[in-house]
Amino acid sequence: MNNSVIRYILGCVLKIESILLLFPCLTAVIYRETEGFYYLLTAFVCGVLGILLTQKKPASFVFYLKEGSIATALSWIIISIFGAAPFFLTGEIPSFTDALFETVSGFTTTGASILNDVEALSQCSLFWRSFTHWIGGMGVLVFLLAIIPLSGGSQFNLMRAESPGPSVGKLVPKIKTTARLLYVIYFGLTLIQIVFMIAGGLDLFNALTITFGTAGTGGFGVENSSIGGYSPYIQWVVAIFMFLFGVNFNVYYLLIYRKWRKALSIEEVRTYFIIVIVSTGIIFFNISGTILSVSDALRHAFFQVSTLMTSTGFSTTDYNVWPQTSKTILIMVMFIGACAGSTGGGIKVSRIIILVKSIKKELTSYIHPKSIIKIKMDGKPVEHDVVRATNVYFITFTIIFSLSAFAISFDDKDLVTNFTAVLATINNMGPGLEGVGPAQNFGSFSIFSKYVLMFDMLAGRLELFPLLLLFHPSIWKELLTRKKSVARRN
Amino acid sequence: MNNSVIRYILGCVLKIESILLLFPCLTAVIYRETEGFYYLLTAFVCGVLGILLTQKKPASFVFYLKEGSIATALSWIIISIFGAAPFFLTGEIPSFTDALFETVSGFTTTGASILNDVEALSQCSLFWRSFTHWIGGMGVLVFLLAIIPLSGGSQFNLMRAESPGPSVGKLVPKIKTTARLLYVIYFGLTLIQIVFMIAGGLDLFNALTITFGTAGTGGFGVENSSIGGYSPYIQWVVAIFMFLFGVNFNVYYLLIYRKWRKALSIEEVRTYFIIVIVSTGIIFFNISGTILSVSDALRHAFFQVSTLMTSTGFSTTDYNVWPQTSKTILIMVMFIGACAGSTGGGIKVSRIIILVKSIKKELTSYIHPKSIIKIKMDGKPVEHDVVRATNVYFITFTIIFSLSAFAISFDDKDLVTNFTAVLATINNMGPGLEGVGPAQNFGSFSIFSKYVLMFDMLAGRLELFPLLLLFHPSIWKELLTRKKSVARRN
Repeated sequence: MNNSVIRYILGCVLKIESILLLFPCLTAVIYRETEGFYYLLTAFVCGVLGILLTQKKPASFVFYLKEGSIATALSWIIISIFGAAPFFLTGEIPSFTDALFETVSGFTTTGASILNDVEALSQCSLFWRSFTHWIGGMGVLVFLLAIIPLSGGSQFNLMRAESPGPSVGKLVPKIKTTARLLYVIYFGLTLIQIVFMIAGGLDLFNALTITFGTAGTGGFGVENSSIGGYSPYIQWVVAIFMFLFGVNFNVYYLLIYRKWRKALSIEEVRTYFIIVIVSTGIIFFNISGTILSVSDALRHAFFQVSTLMTSTGFSTTDYNVWPQTSKTILIMVMFIGACAGSTGGGIKVSRIIILVKSIKKELTSYIHPKSIIKIKMDGKPVEHDVVRATNVYFITFTIIFSLSAFAISFDDKDLVTNFTAVLATINNMGPGLEGVGPAQNFGSFSIFSKYVLMFDMLAGRLELFPLLLLFHPSIWKELLTRKKSVARRN
Repeated sequence: MNNSVIRYILGCVLKIESILLLFPCLTAVIYRETEGFYYLLTAFVCGVLGILLTQKKPASFVFYLKEGSIATALSWIIISIFGAAPFFLTGEIPSFTDALFETVSGFTTTGASILNDVEALSQCSLFWRSFTHWIGGMGVLVFLLAIIPLSGGSQFNLMRAESPGPSVGKLVPKIKTTARLLYVIYFGLTLIQIVFMIAGGLDLFNALTITFGTAGTGGFGVENSSIGGYSPYIQWVVAIFMFLFGVNFNVYYLLIYRKWRKALSIEEVRTYFIIVIVSTGIIFFNISGTILSVSDALRHAFFQVSTLMTSTGFSTTDYNVWPQTSKTILIMVMFIGACAGSTGGGIKVSRIIILVKSIKKELTSYIHPKSIIKIKMDGKPVEHDVVRATNVYFITFTIIFSLSAFAISFDDKDLVTNFTAVLATINNMGPGLEGVGPAQNFGSFSIFSKYVLMFDMLAGRLELFPLLLLFHPSIWKELLTRKKSVARRN
C-alpha cells in the first residue's frame, strides 16, 4: 500500500482544518468571547501537525481504491478528533466522548446532539458546530481535490470513497474540474439561501448557522426548539432548500449548461420528487385533523418529509405525537434517503430504484427463465458490478444496523428508541423517535453506546465500506509494516 | 403455460385435503361433538371438486418453474379457503376473514391467532387447527410428489417452489424418493416426540396437538397459556424438538445412512447450533436476575430462542417483560430463522451465511481489486445464481416488510406492535411484541390489515416469489387465455 500518499493527504486535511478553525476564532473576536482562544490553539496545533506531515512529498502519487478508502476513513476520524478539541477545552462539553460525539455528528451531517441546552454554548462554538455540517456536507477530500495539485494516479478513488451513492457521476472528464464544479454549485446554493434567510429578517449569525445546517443536510440548530421558533416564511425557505440540497448535483450542473430536458429526465430525481410529493400528501391528510390550519399542516408535513428524507434532522414540531401512519411514512423516507451525489444521507433513491428493479428482474426470470434482462437506469444499462455492490451495500447496511441495535440495547432503553437511534445515526439524520425524538437528545446513552453510534454515523457518511476496511486485519498489517520500513530507513 | 397440469394438481390437492379433513371428523366422533358434521361436509365438497378437476388427465406433464410456482401459490390459497370453512360453518369463528386468518396461519405454520379464548373451541376444531400445522410443515405438494404418479416433466420445480431455503438439496437423484424420504423423517421425528410427550404424562389429544405444533414449527396451542401450563419436562421436550425440527433434514438423512462426519460438517447446521447456544447463553445471563431459579432461567431462555428462531411461536413466559438486550436478541433470531430444508421459517441460516460471505467478498475486492473470489459453502463454491437470488430475496423481503408495516399502520397501533406483527407473520412465527406479544392476539386488527398479514404469511411460507408471481399481469393473461381456449374446445 502507498502509505506515504495517505500520510500526505492526512497532512493536507489537517492544514485545511487549521484554516477552517479560524472562522470560529473570527466569530469569537466579533462577540468578544474568550473561548476563541481554544479555537486558535487547536488551529495552531492542526497547522503545525499538517505542515510536519506534508513536508516530505510522497514518492509516488499512485492511488488505488484501497488507499482512497483508507485515506478517507482516517481523514474523517482525525478531523473529528481535532474538531472536538475546542468543545472539550472550553469546558462547554465537559466529557471528551460527548464532544467527539457532537463533532462526528457535525462532520457526518447527522445532527444528533448530546446537548440539553444548545443556547448555553458560546457564539463561536455554536458557529463551529454548524460550520462542521457545511464542511462535512460536500466532503473534505472533494475540497482537497479541488484545490491541491494532487497529480498522477487515480484520484477518482478518493472521490469515490467520499461521495454518496452507488456510482459517482463525473460531471466532466477531469476529476479536479468536477470537484471544483461541485463546490461552486454548493457555494452558490448556500449563498442564495443566506440571501433568502436575511430577506426573512434573520441576523447574519442565524442566517449563516441555519444555512450551514441546511446545506450540509446536517440539522444542528442554534435554538433549543430547532426551527420551531422561526417564522413560517423561514420554515418554508429551510424546507425548500433542504429539498434542493437533497437533489443530485448533476441536475444543477445540467441546468447551468441549460440542458433542461436532460436535467428533468434523470430517473432518480423524478422518483425523488414523486416520493416527496406523495409522502407529503399522505401525511398532510393524515395530520389535517390534529393541527389547526391547512397551511400549518402542509408546512409541517412538507418540512418533516424534507428534513427526514434528506437526513437533515431539523424539526418544526414534535412528530412523535403524530398518527402511526405518518410516523411509518417518516421512518420509510428516513430509510430511503436523498439522491446520490447530493449532500443528503440514507440508502439513496438510486439504490432503491436499482433494488426494486432487481426484484422485477427476478420475477421476470421466473416467467421467462432463458431471457437475459439488463437493469436499466436513465435508459442505459446499469453495470453488473453496480447492481452487485448495491445489493451488498443494502445487506451490509442491515447487518450493521442489527448489530448496532443489539450493542446499544444494553442501556435498556425501549426498542423504538434503540432502533430509531441507530437509524438516525447510520442515515446521518439526527433525531429519531421516542427517547431520541426531536424534543430529546442522545446525552443519556452510555459511553459505549455513544461510540457505537459514532461508528454508525461515520459508516453511514462514508457509505460503509471505507470504514469497515479499517477493521480488516490485512490493512493494519500493511499500514504497520510500512511504518517499520520507514523507521528502518531513517 | 401448461394450465391443464396446474388444474390437475389443484384437483389432487383438494382430494388430499378431503382425506385429511376426516381426521377431525374422527376426533368429533370420539368426543361426541356435533361440529364434526361440518368437517364431513367440507371433506365431501373437497372430494367431489377434487374428483371433477382430476377426471381429465392433463395432455402433458411438462412442468417449468413458472407452472410450479403458480401451482404452489394457488394450492396454498385453495387449501386455506376450504380449511377455513369448518371454523366458519360451526360458528366457532363467526367472521370468515378471521377463520381464513386462523387457517392461513395454521397451514403456513405461523401460529398467529385471532382467538381470545382458545379453550372455547370444540376438540375437533382444536385438532384441525393444530393438524394444519403438521400438514403445512412439510408441504402439501411435497406430499403429492411422494404419493401420486406425476411422471415426466420436471417436478423438481414443484418442490423448489414449496421448500424453504435458497437451494433445494435433493437427497437422492429421484425427486419422488426424496419427497418420500422427507416424509419418512418427518413422520419418524413426529412419532418420537409423541412418545416422549405421552411418557411425560400427557393424554393422546394433548400429545398429538402439541406435537403437530412443534413438528410444523407452527405454534398453535390448545391452552390459553400456550405451553406455560405444562410441566418443565414437557417444556424441555418441546424446546428440544422445536430445535430439532429447525435442523436441515439433510442431516437426518445422512444420520440414517450413518454418514456421521458429513452430517456434522454441514456449515449451516453448525452455524445454527452456535447461534442457538450463544443466544441462549446471553439471554440466560441477562434474565438470571429477574427469574427465580437457575434452571427456570435456562429453560425459559432456551425455549424462547428455540421457539422464535425456528419460528414456532409457542411460549412459556411473557418475554415482553424481559430486558431490552434479551428482546433485541429475540428479534434478531426471529429474522435469522431456522435452517433451509427444515420446517422452520425466517430468512434461513444458510441465506444469512451467504449474505455475510458476500460482504466479506466485497471488502476483499477493495483490497485486491483484481482477485476473483468465489463464495464457498461446505467447501464447494456457491453458484452465482444462488448468491444473486439470495440477495434479491433479502431485498424483496425488506420491501414487502416495509410496505406491509405501512399498510397496517392505518389501524393506528404502536410502532412495535406493527413492526413485530409483520415480522411475526412474514417469518411464519406467530406472536410478536407489545400488542401482538405472546399474551395477546391478532384479533383487534382491521379486516384490511388481516388480509395484508395473510399475504405476508403466505409470502413467507412460499419464499416470496411464487406468491408475488400471482400479481404479475402476464401470468393472469396466460391463465385466462388458456381458459378461453378450453371453453372454446368444448
